[in-house]
Amino acid sequence: MNKPAVRTRFELLFEGEGRNAGRYRTDVIVHRRARVVESFHLPTDEGKIIGGDGTAPYPLAYFVSALTGCLTTHLRSFSERLDIPLRHMTVNVSCRWEARQADDALYESAPIKFTVDVDLGDDMPEADKRRLVAAARKGCFVEQSLKPGIVRHRLKSGDGWIDLG
Amino acid sequence: MNKPAVRTRFELLFEGEGRNAGRYRTDVIVHRRARVVESFHLPTDEGKIIGGDGTAPYPLAYFVSALTGCLTTHLRSFSERLDIPLRHMTVNVSCRWEARQADDALYESAPIKFTVDVDLGDDMPEADKRRLVAAARKGCFVEQSLKPGIVRHRLKSGDGWIDLG
Repeated sequence: MNKPAVRTRFELLFEGEGRNAGRYRTDVIVHRRARVVESFHLPTDEGKIIGGDGTAPYPLAYFVSALTGCLTTHLRSFSERLDIPLRHMTVNVSCRWEARQADDALYESAPIKFTVDVDLGDDMPEADKRRLVAAARKGCFVEQSLKPGIVRHRLKSGDGWIDLG
Repeated sequence: MNKPAVRTRFELLFEGEGRNAGRYRTDVIVHRRARVVESFHLPTDEGKIIGGDGTAPYPLAYFVSALTGCLTTHLRSFSERLDIPLRHMTVNVSCRWEARQADDALYESAPIKFTVDVDLGDDMPEADKRRLVAAARKGCFVEQSLKPGIVRHRLKSGDGWIDLG
């Protein structure tokens, strides 16, 4: 991976086309709109245990992968840009939501807390770890789209964890 | 699908384990934590066109599928609960982000606008369409996790679109 030049400003556009025919499964095609269009078939379903057909992942499973992958992508990219050597890393994410009854038929939902535990290995100085995670959070398109204050990060340091807030 | 009873309050917990070994690809396993655990392998990568290996979808492609699928799931579920007949539906989502240069190496990102176009078919009265979309938005775990004001919905009505804000 060559170190990419930073442009002053750029935009990203992703579009999804969802079709649902009567049960919980939704066929979603997602397009990355750029000079070259790239498309992905990412259907969603609910598990049989809660009334779906279990033919595809839950929407919230995709959500958690998006948050996990977007942060690791920025940790990787920004480590190159900052000349901070980084080999293996592990990012574990936990997302908890609640739903409360709104009336006798419906519920309203809300996020409770999302935690992101980042392990950048034992070789990197703690100051570099903190700098890299802080930068990657600001670059992460998914985290920057979320309600402020939901996401908390923890950083592996030696045998313990540092709460970064 | 039987009409499920509404519980007063419930929680959902999804956890992701992400492992990255040196390039942009991240192997993510997502677990739905409930009495029965369900797990999904949802790896992410960047396209070759921007320095990745193109072995898996972009994190933001998963994000768009999550938003699309979570809303359609709630439209389907709540149509049953509200006894509003609903057959085929189409939900098209557009998510636009920007990134601005932070210094000579990094950028900071932000959402610009997410639009959600909902087509519930020609048979449903407009009042029911509005009621159903309003309820599904409040139930949608993904939309309720996003920064307020980013997501705008439009409702198909006849040959045109109604902006729901």
